[in-house]
Amino acid sequence: MTKNTKVNAAILIIGNEILSGRTQDTNTSTIAQWLNLIGVKVNEVRVIPDIEKIIIENVNHLRKINDYVFTTGGIGPTHDDITAQSISKAFRLKYEIHKEAFKILEAYYKVGEFNEGRQKMVWMPKNANLILNPTSGAPGFNVQNVFCLPGVPSILKAMLGGLKDKIIGGEPILSHTISLRTVESEISDSLTSVQDNNKDVEIGSYPFFQAGKLGVSIVIRSEDKLKIDKCSSEILKFVNQKKIEVVIR
Amino acid sequence: MTKNTKVNAAILIIGNEILSGRTQDTNTSTIAQWLNLIGVKVNEVRVIPDIEKIIIENVNHLRKINDYVFTTGGIGPTHDDITAQSISKAFRLKYEIHKEAFKILEAYYKVGEFNEGRQKMVWMPKNANLILNPTSGAPGFNVQNVFCLPGVPSILKAMLGGLKDKIIGGEPILSHTISLRTVESEISDSLTSVQDNNKDVEIGSYPFFQAGKLGVSIVIRSEDKLKIDKCSSEILKFVNQKKIEVVIR
Repeated sequence: MTKNTKVNAAILIIGNEILSGRTQDTNTSTIAQWLNLIGVKVNEVRVIPDIEKIIIENVNHLRKINDYVFTTGGIGPTHDDITAQSISKAFRLKYEIHKEAFKILEAYYKVGEFNEGRQKMVWMPKNANLILNPTSGAPGFNVQNVFCLPGVPSILKAMLGGLKDKIIGGEPILSHTISLRTVESEISDSLTSVQDNNKDVEIGSYPFFQAGKLGVSIVIRSEDKLKIDKCSSEILKFVNQKKIEVVIR
Repeated sequence: MTKNTKVNAAILIIGNEILSGRTQDTNTSTIAQWLNLIGVKVNEVRVIPDIEKIIIENVNHLRKINDYVFTTGGIGPTHDDITAQSISKAFRLKYEIHKEAFKILEAYYKVGEFNEGRQKMVWMPKNANLILNPTSGAPGFNVQNVFCLPGVPSILKAMLGGLKDKIIGGEPILSHTISLRTVESEISDSLTSVQDNNKDVEIGSYPFFQAGKLGVSIVIRSEDKLKIDKCSSEILKFVNQKKIEVVIR
C-alpha cells in the first residue's frame, strides 16, 4: 500500500472520572505523540461519560470522518466498564465471549482466579481483533478502524507498541521549535507574515515562563522538512533583525 | 432564581498544541473541579484545532445543548489566536474593539508598550461581557452562555474566581471515595448490585497502584448526601463480608 500523506485520527476518552476533574487525562498526549511518529494526525479529542447511548453516537460519528478512532477506558471488569458492549451495538455485532481472549486470561490467572468478574473482560464484539496486553493480561481490541484501549496510562502505553502493524500512517509529522526570550505581542506581526507566506505549514506560538523569565516557543509542524527549514529561516531572520535572544529549553 | 438541580456544561479546548501531544491539557481538570463546587456538571469535553470553521461549528453545537460552554485558548495576540473572531461569527456579531478592554490594557501597559500586537487582544464580539484577568491584564469575555478563557493554566485559574457571579449552578455535586486493598474483579459483582439498587447515583471504580500494591478507589457522586451515605454503607457491608481492607490514600 502506498503511503497516504494525510492520515487522521480521533481520540475518544470514555470516563466520568475525567469529566469530574478527579483524574487528569494523560492518554491524549501519549497517543497523539505516538501517532505523530507514524504519520497520523489527531484531528479531534472528545471526553464523554460512561453512558452507552453517548458512546455509540460518538463512535459512529467519529469513525466515519476519521481514518482511525482510539478509545480509552471502560474495558475493565466493573459495572461502569461498558465500552465493549457499546462498540458491539455501534457496529451491530453480537456481544459474546472472545475465545482467544478467554484462553489468554485463563492461562494468565492462577487456577481458580479467573472468576466471573474477570471473565467479563473477554466479552467483546463478535470477531474483534485483539490488541495484546503485555502488562496485565486483559487485551484490548479493534473492530474495523476503532481501537479500544484501557484507561490506565501505564497499561495503555505498553499496548501501543503492539498496534504498530495495524495502523498505516502517512509521512511522519515533523516539528521544529524555536524558543525566544520575548513576549508574543513583540513578534505577532512578523509571525503572521511568515504564516501568510507558508500557508500549508502549521505555526503555533506558545508563551512560557521559565526560571523567572517570560518567553515564547514557536512550533513549526509539517510532513515536509524543507518547508519547516524555510519557515525556520524566515523566523530567524526577523528574530535577528529585532535582536531577540534565542534560548534553549 | 431558584436553584436548578441539573446544570451542565461543556468544555471546548482550542489548540493544536494539545492535539499534537506537545502540551498536556490541565485546564479540563481545573475547570471541572471548580464547576463541581458550584453545582455544574461537565457533560462533554472536546479538543479541536485552531481552525475557524471547526470552532464555529463546535461552539454553535455545544451552546445549544448545554447550560454553559467554556472555551480555553486562542485569545492571545498571535496569528493562531482566533477564538474571539470565531465566536463573533458563531453569534453573527460584529468583531470590533471593545472599549472597556482597550482602557484596561492601555492602563496596564507602560506608555508606548500597548502596541498593535497587544491591541489585537481587545478585539471581541460586539457587546461581549468582560472576564477580568488579575494576572496579566488581557481579559477574557463571554457572549450569552459561552465563556472564553485563556489557555495558560495559571492565568485561567486566576480568572475563574471572577466568574462566580456569572454562573448559576445547581446543588453542588458531592463525592465520596472509598479506597480498598483489592482488585476490581473481586468486587465487580457486589458493586454492580449496589449500582442497580441506586440507579440515580454515579458509582465509579478506579484501579490504582500505590507503594507497590494494587488497590481500587470507588467514587460515589450525587447532589444528595443521603444517597451517597446509603451507597457508602451498602459498599462497606460487602467490603466487611469479604474481609477487604479499607485504605487511606
